[in-house]
Amino acid sequence: MRNFNKVTIIGVGLMGGSIGLALKKRRMAGEVTGVFRRASTLKKALKHKAVDKASETIEGGVKDADLIILATPVHSIPGLARESLKYAKKGAIITDIGSTKKWIVDSVDKMFGRSKKVFFVGSHPMAGSEHAGVEYAKKDLFKNSPCIVTSTPKTDKKALDKVVKFWRELGLSVAVMSPSEHDRSVSLISHLPHLVAFSLAGAVPVKDLAYAAEGFKDTTRVAMSDPRLWTDIFLSNRKEIVKAGSCFEKYYKKIITAIAKGNYSEVVGLLEKAKTIREHIKK
Amino acid sequence: MRNFNKVTIIGVGLMGGSIGLALKKRRMAGEVTGVFRRASTLKKALKHKAVDKASETIEGGVKDADLIILATPVHSIPGLARESLKYAKKGAIITDIGSTKKWIVDSVDKMFGRSKKVFFVGSHPMAGSEHAGVEYAKKDLFKNSPCIVTSTPKTDKKALDKVVKFWRELGLSVAVMSPSEHDRSVSLISHLPHLVAFSLAGAVPVKDLAYAAEGFKDTTRVAMSDPRLWTDIFLSNRKEIVKAGSCFEKYYKKIITAIAKGNYSEVVGLLEKAKTIREHIKK
Repeated sequence: MRNFNKVTIIGVGLMGGSIGLALKKRRMAGEVTGVFRRASTLKKALKHKAVDKASETIEGGVKDADLIILATPVHSIPGLARESLKYAKKGAIITDIGSTKKWIVDSVDKMFGRSKKVFFVGSHPMAGSEHAGVEYAKKDLFKNSPCIVTSTPKTDKKALDKVVKFWRELGLSVAVMSPSEHDRSVSLISHLPHLVAFSLAGAVPVKDLAYAAEGFKDTTRVAMSDPRLWTDIFLSNRKEIVKAGSCFEKYYKKIITAIAKGNYSEVVGLLEKAKTIREHIKK
Repeated sequence: MRNFNKVTIIGVGLMGGSIGLALKKRRMAGEVTGVFRRASTLKKALKHKAVDKASETIEGGVKDADLIILATPVHSIPGLARESLKYAKKGAIITDIGSTKKWIVDSVDKMFGRSKKVFFVGSHPMAGSEHAGVEYAKKDLFKNSPCIVTSTPKTDKKALDKVVKFWRELGLSVAVMSPSEHDRSVSLISHLPHLVAFSLAGAVPVKDLAYAAEGFKDTTRVAMSDPRLWTDIFLSNRKEIVKAGSCFEKYYKKIITAIAKGNYSEVVGLLEKAKTIREHIKK
């Protein structure tokens, strides 16, 4: 079913490219256009068949679009929303895939305040990998992934419904919440694990890596993610990350103190509680 | 090539069972015997074809063995080494697969002091998974995994060579070092990641797990490991784990402080350094 005839993706990397591939596989759009800053990415994206058409300007890319997806690093999203707003046609919907929401949605809500013709709805499809670049894009990257769509008093309800439906048809499992609630939840479930993985990898002397087995590899896999992308995410959600960090530090301190004291039953109890939580999700 | 005609595995769970399967696949032993405490495990192990023969007593299992592998939780290894020593034939070699080495090897070296006929060499094949039980045993669990074999002034050099050769033929990549050096290295590369994964899982409210994507799953996968097994490992290597914890805490504090201050270039620098370290190993 086509809810949007023309979909434009601004920023065609791992995420934007995977959305393009999934849209085409599911025939969810009449045409998928990509907007590129770099000619080299454009070439790769067309070769990878991630988009049908390519534009090197925002204006050219968004002017006929029914849905515009901003798939660039967090800090650039409000500016691109402003640019897209300039050229978008009446009734167009703009969404994004940024990993933090309050900073983005607050910024965009302000600038869209007077606009009646173009709507913004914040999204965060929670997939990805430690790889970056359209060459890693996969049509199934988002299948069965969670997706949070944000709602604020300024959000147009029809546009919200359409964006929710869009992600559902793309195979994601969607929840709607406020940007603040998103940032709190995601700081614990995504930002904190990345921070901890980077800290673990950073703490290990290279000479000891020879003995790294699956446990270390799994636990630190996301430390191979793009440092600039993640700094961007961390800084745009710093208050919640510091709070999430406190929860982690508290549990960690409890375990390591019990280990240092040699308190067997206390350590077992803390590990059992953690295991029970982790087993709520599969794999 | 058969270096050991009869191999006996005491404790046939995930690890012991996988050794049995690998030995049989590679025809590295004339006969593989398992020693079981529980009849239910014995039944499962025979069904899984992890061993050729089964014994419910140490005496029956080890008396003709050329190589005895202690594949039980850390705390039980010195006691089982003492039991095995009683019944083992002249020239037999005993090794183990315990995740900490100094406590085990020190304990065993003391009791083997007067023995000229049976040799002990500590081993730590570094594979495994968050699953426990012989039903998860796989013949390829150890393929290309690192394995540390320990050497002390009391270690018999011929026995050491045979144990090193044994793990190499089983497909592992072997390094020889002192038990202390093992414990230091492994506290950073294995024990600490487990501790951190348990802490992460323990810190997250269950209601937020709905939004857990691959990053969270990878980073906390090992928090599904057996709590008793891991408490055992943590307590037997507590001094090194506390030291490894300090290294981790230092790096973590650096990143989170830079995030709180909003220092972009400092955060990028720390993440880049961590990524570079992680990229020394594949996957």
